[in-house]
Amino acid sequence: MMAKLMLQLTLLALTNFSTLAKAHEPSPLQDFCVADFKSRVRVNGFACLDPKQVTADHFLFRGLHVRGNTSNPLGSFINRPTVAEIPGLNTLGISTVRADYASRGVVPPHRHPRASEILTVLEGTVLAGFVTSDPGNRLVSKVLQKGDVFVFPFGLIHFQENIGPGKAVTMAFLSSQNPGVIAIANAIFGSNPPINDHVLAKAFQVDKSVVNKLQAPYN
Amino acid sequence: MMAKLMLQLTLLALTNFSTLAKAHEPSPLQDFCVADFKSRVRVNGFACLDPKQVTADHFLFRGLHVRGNTSNPLGSFINRPTVAEIPGLNTLGISTVRADYASRGVVPPHRHPRASEILTVLEGTVLAGFVTSDPGNRLVSKVLQKGDVFVFPFGLIHFQENIGPGKAVTMAFLSSQNPGVIAIANAIFGSNPPINDHVLAKAFQVDKSVVNKLQAPYN
Amino acid sequence: MMAKLMLQLTLLALTNFSTLAKAHEPSPLQDFCVADFKSRVRVNGFACLDPKQVTADHFLFRGLHVRGNTSNPLGSFINRPTVAEIPGLNTLGISTVRADYASRGVVPPHRHPRASEILTVLEGTVLAGFVTSDPGNRLVSKVLQKGDVFVFPFGLIHFQENIGPGKAVTMAFLSSQNPGVIAIANAIFGSNPPINDHVLAKAFQVDKSVVNKLQAPYN
Amino acid sequence: MMAKLMLQLTLLALTNFSTLAKAHEPSPLQDFCVADFKSRVRVNGFACLDPKQVTADHFLFRGLHVRGNTSNPLGSFINRPTVAEIPGLNTLGISTVRADYASRGVVPPHRHPRASEILTVLEGTVLAGFVTSDPGNRLVSKVLQKGDVFVFPFGLIHFQENIGPGKAVTMAFLSSQNPGVIAIANAIFGSNPPINDHVLAKAFQVDKSVVNKLQAPYN
Amino acid sequence: MMAKLMLQLTLLALTNFSTLAKAHEPSPLQDFCVADFKSRVRVNGFACLDPKQVTADHFLFRGLHVRGNTSNPLGSFINRPTVAEIPGLNTLGISTVRADYASRGVVPPHRHPRASEILTVLEGTVLAGFVTSDPGNRLVSKVLQKGDVFVFPFGLIHFQENIGPGKAVTMAFLSSQNPGVIAIANAIFGSNPPINDHVLAKAFQVDKSVVNKLQAPYN
Amino acid sequence: MMAKLMLQLTLLALTNFSTLAKAHEPSPLQDFCVADFKSRVRVNGFACLDPKQVTADHFLFRGLHVRGNTSNPLGSFINRPTVAEIPGLNTLGISTVRADYASRGVVPPHRHPRASEILTVLEGTVLAGFVTSDPGNRLVSKVLQKGDVFVFPFGLIHFQENIGPGKAVTMAFLSSQNPGVIAIANAIFGSNPPINDHVLAKAFQVDKSVVNKLQAPYN
Repeated sequence: MMAKLMLQLTLLALTNFSTLAKAHEPSPLQDFCVADFKSRVRVNGFACLDPKQVTADHFLFRGLHVRGNTSNPLGSFINRPTVAEIPGLNTLGISTVRADYASRGVVPPHRHPRASEILTVLEGTVLAGFVTSDPGNRLVSKVLQKGDVFVFPFGLIHFQENIGPGKAVTMAFLSSQNPGVIAIANAIFGSNPPINDHVLAKAFQVDKSVVNKLQAPYN
Repeated sequence: MMAKLMLQLTLLALTNFSTLAKAHEPSPLQDFCVADFKSRVRVNGFACLDPKQVTADHFLFRGLHVRGNTSNPLGSFINRPTVAEIPGLNTLGISTVRADYASRGVVPPHRHPRASEILTVLEGTVLAGFVTSDPGNRLVSKVLQKGDVFVFPFGLIHFQENIGPGKAVTMAFLSSQNPGVIAIANAIFGSNPPINDHVLAKAFQVDKSVVNKLQAPYN
Repeated sequence: MMAKLMLQLTLLALTNFSTLAKAHEPSPLQDFCVADFKSRVRVNGFACLDPKQVTADHFLFRGLHVRGNTSNPLGSFINRPTVAEIPGLNTLGISTVRADYASRGVVPPHRHPRASEILTVLEGTVLAGFVTSDPGNRLVSKVLQKGDVFVFPFGLIHFQENIGPGKAVTMAFLSSQNPGVIAIANAIFGSNPPINDHVLAKAFQVDKSVVNKLQAPYN
Repeated sequence: MMAKLMLQLTLLALTNFSTLAKAHEPSPLQDFCVADFKSRVRVNGFACLDPKQVTADHFLFRGLHVRGNTSNPLGSFINRPTVAEIPGLNTLGISTVRADYASRGVVPPHRHPRASEILTVLEGTVLAGFVTSDPGNRLVSKVLQKGDVFVFPFGLIHFQENIGPGKAVTMAFLSSQNPGVIAIANAIFGSNPPINDHVLAKAFQVDKSVVNKLQAPYN
Repeated sequence: MMAKLMLQLTLLALTNFSTLAKAHEPSPLQDFCVADFKSRVRVNGFACLDPKQVTADHFLFRGLHVRGNTSNPLGSFINRPTVAEIPGLNTLGISTVRADYASRGVVPPHRHPRASEILTVLEGTVLAGFVTSDPGNRLVSKVLQKGDVFVFPFGLIHFQENIGPGKAVTMAFLSSQNPGVIAIANAIFGSNPPINDHVLAKAFQVDKSVVNKLQAPYN
Repeated sequence: MMAKLMLQLTLLALTNFSTLAKAHEPSPLQDFCVADFKSRVRVNGFACLDPKQVTADHFLFRGLHVRGNTSNPLGSFINRPTVAEIPGLNTLGISTVRADYASRGVVPPHRHPRASEILTVLEGTVLAGFVTSDPGNRLVSKVLQKGDVFVFPFGLIHFQENIGPGKAVTMAFLSSQNPGVIAIANAIFGSNPPINDHVLAKAFQVDKSVVNKLQAPYN
């Protein structure tokens, strides 16, 4: 089940596998370098479409106002139009993401390897937090109301939870055309093949039986 | 009057003059480098606050849901919380901006010297466009409805107009902690001291009388 | 007429459209990456020629000492050998430009989206100035004599005028292999299609009749 | 106990808190910018020592051949001389790390937010692996013998285990003067204050009782 | 003979000519971009292999523990596995090098145009030094014992000599996937075609007869 | 004598030692960051002057048209106005250099560790060449006439010689506010303290007697 949900979280990732696996954030060095998804060349980022073929539609995405379906174990839904959906973002180093939350819905601890994030609440009451790496694992969190803005520094583990009784909606922007996402839980316990029990038991200081419980959602 | 309005457009700029004049976008190279506005040192960006003094409030801004007053010649209002308002943005290369529009309200042609922009419509119907530099001055524009997302490439001149009968609201994000803003009209016709008439008349291929009309709002 | 002149100013741009549209300034990461104009691949910058085919001529341009024809509305002529003319400049982040001026000749307000500029006067007396973006549109200018050097900071609007009785010549260098150029007048009033009258009238705080006068040179 | 061990893993981090919290990797733009730990100024990286005071000792560290004490729950010991120990590394974007392993000793899943890593085995037989973020959590691992070299891509979660009967030693280099380290287990279950049970239970799809077991080593 | 030896020093360089001539160090912008040596496209760095074809072996190199043959005029042997040998290094900005030394063996003055270097002694006693460029040619050197670490700043001329009675071994890491190497002696006196005698005699303030002695090893 | 001449070549370097030792080329992240030579803070580049104190003179240098005195062993004279002479260049990544040559005057083999160079001949006939590092030491050279432009790629060893009967003048631009200069001859044979004879004799494959001749100009 978890795996299903994670498919949402890694929708971009999957898309990337086929078409996006090499997006990057150079300084843009021309007015635009619209991604040419048909190019056979794999480079660090996308090859560019012939400017003569570029139209306003390459810079457009529609439907970010639509509510997502939160009927899933996490009670949240992520809609990430990145360069895969907006080819004009190629080389511009920016993208956006909308999250919908059921009551007590969670966007689980995750990180973006290639982006900072700035988030604002459009609706509801959201607990947002990040954990520092240096020094030692301090949790920095805040309860956010409508109109509040909060920042997740580059690459740090962060999460959100809708702590209100009703639905919640957040809109965020990331400093990458393809920020990537690592959901900690399935990176550690859902990898394929699995990380061996001995390593996980020592790392988390628990019995292998506990490790197996944590791996169960991915079996 | 124009000048007054421009004060809004350059609110950030003015703030910067006193405190922000050297913001920059390095890779963030520590978890965070919260801007220390009290530091006497002027560097490319801000000196950093002692991490021991950093709290969640340094990453927080409140009130982006509040409507702005659009009773001005442009019929628009800009609210830009950048690193001056959110010290935690220092070194993170991202900021946000809300625009409110009266009917037919305009965000005049301007550019951000240090940022790309991605904009979404929260309310109303907005015409958004940018002009290419290379090749020759092509206008790329689109009429946007609620939920639409549009991209302004790095550094290009762009504008927005509320073409609907009611109010409009857009939320945008920029790839800089301090993107800067150059409103073309007052850069060319409102500079202090003014650019001499001869240069402007030749550049715009008009009589000096026309140049004087264009300079009038700033006298 | 203006349009004709602008063709000169955007000669590079036009060239770029066909062959250069993706030049960029990475760190050079090999001795040289001479631009391969025959490559079918469009990337951020040029694909590289096989080093075995590279000769000294790829690093050479001849004729920068030749006077340009200044019989045009602006009374100036621009000669910009960039990566399009010197393929060896690809990835090196530098190019050069010579300007010839008739008496009272003008290089109109323009900016380079991707470069700083350092200029020296070889002949004549030249007024050079730039307008700040942050804070508020301050004009910084100087009258330059033979042997004087002046700097235009990155991306700012600047201009030159030959204020002497005779001819003038300046030589400048830019921190980009393809700096690009935005001539403000035709970006705003000469775009294709035009920016709508309503937006321009509000932005410049003038009647549409004035806007039409400014658009006339491009019709 | 785990916490004690993690102190080793985050030794650098702790050091950084007091003195290193703003290290960064610019291009070095002078021969050297030896870190001045006495400077009161906190910048992104260190202020530089007066070159007149710089000696060869600022580029030197002694003792990387000494075996570390692996009598701890993980059965491993980490020795990381970074810019805190070698001030000459400031601005050079490189550092090194030695790891000692008891038999079955583990360097637990962790990541460096600011570095790639290249590792070679000096002694023993080591299983090394990393988990991809994009696409979905593939484990890439290899059993390494003496003289083998293996690469951990930038920012990805990775781990090592001594699978041989005797001791093992690895030497690695990182592409940062201060790579940072995030040990996943204590970032998620050992943060201060803790991430709330509800978020963790949903994220890992287990009962809070399991979450509590995972948090136990840090209480 | 010298020329032969230099072939070793420039083994990478030569390899690069055919396959590597455009390696570079961007930020890695995806999990990995394994070099595709079969790609026909020459870009700044390598085109990337289809991620579906990537295996752990792309990140592996074997045999760095093997002693090199030091029976040559310099009495040293260099083993540099870079991106040519480890395709997974592409875009990761790091590589490694092992040096073996006979007694009094020398790694002659050279520089890496694209890397800093951090070196540690695994065996023997090694004199290591670099010359500053700015200011005025100061030699910074140190005698290193087993376990000592020393740093060569970015791009500076440096050298090593085994000053002990027995063999020596050093392991070093460089901040580039393809650091490049310029051995000063053959760059100046062994170029093809030669730099003319007049230039060299003036530059070194010696008779042409001395210049000819210096050029002899390359004839 | 040579040493005296080199003082000219390293004039910038010496200046840098006291005031410039940390110049760098970030993206400029504000309109300008004029170098504050009075600041006590040593950072990577200069601290910035309060924008309120900045005038047009900070962007100005006078006298680049003046001929230099070429009565010295090299028969050349270098005039390099960099950020030390033009504080407004700080963060702009560009500077300029004029060279005067007597007949057969030489600018000896040297390199700029932090810049590419583009050179044009204002007067005379100049042989210009650079040596590749990768692959093996190929000399790329050209005889340049008035109006010719030639490029020296980033960091490569290059030289110029006036091969005409009269005087020669070149103007060049470098992609750094403080490019630095390494004159090969005195880096290798004039360092302080000297590199030991054994290393130099092996590196250049000549007797120590020849090494001593090469060191003589610096004693």
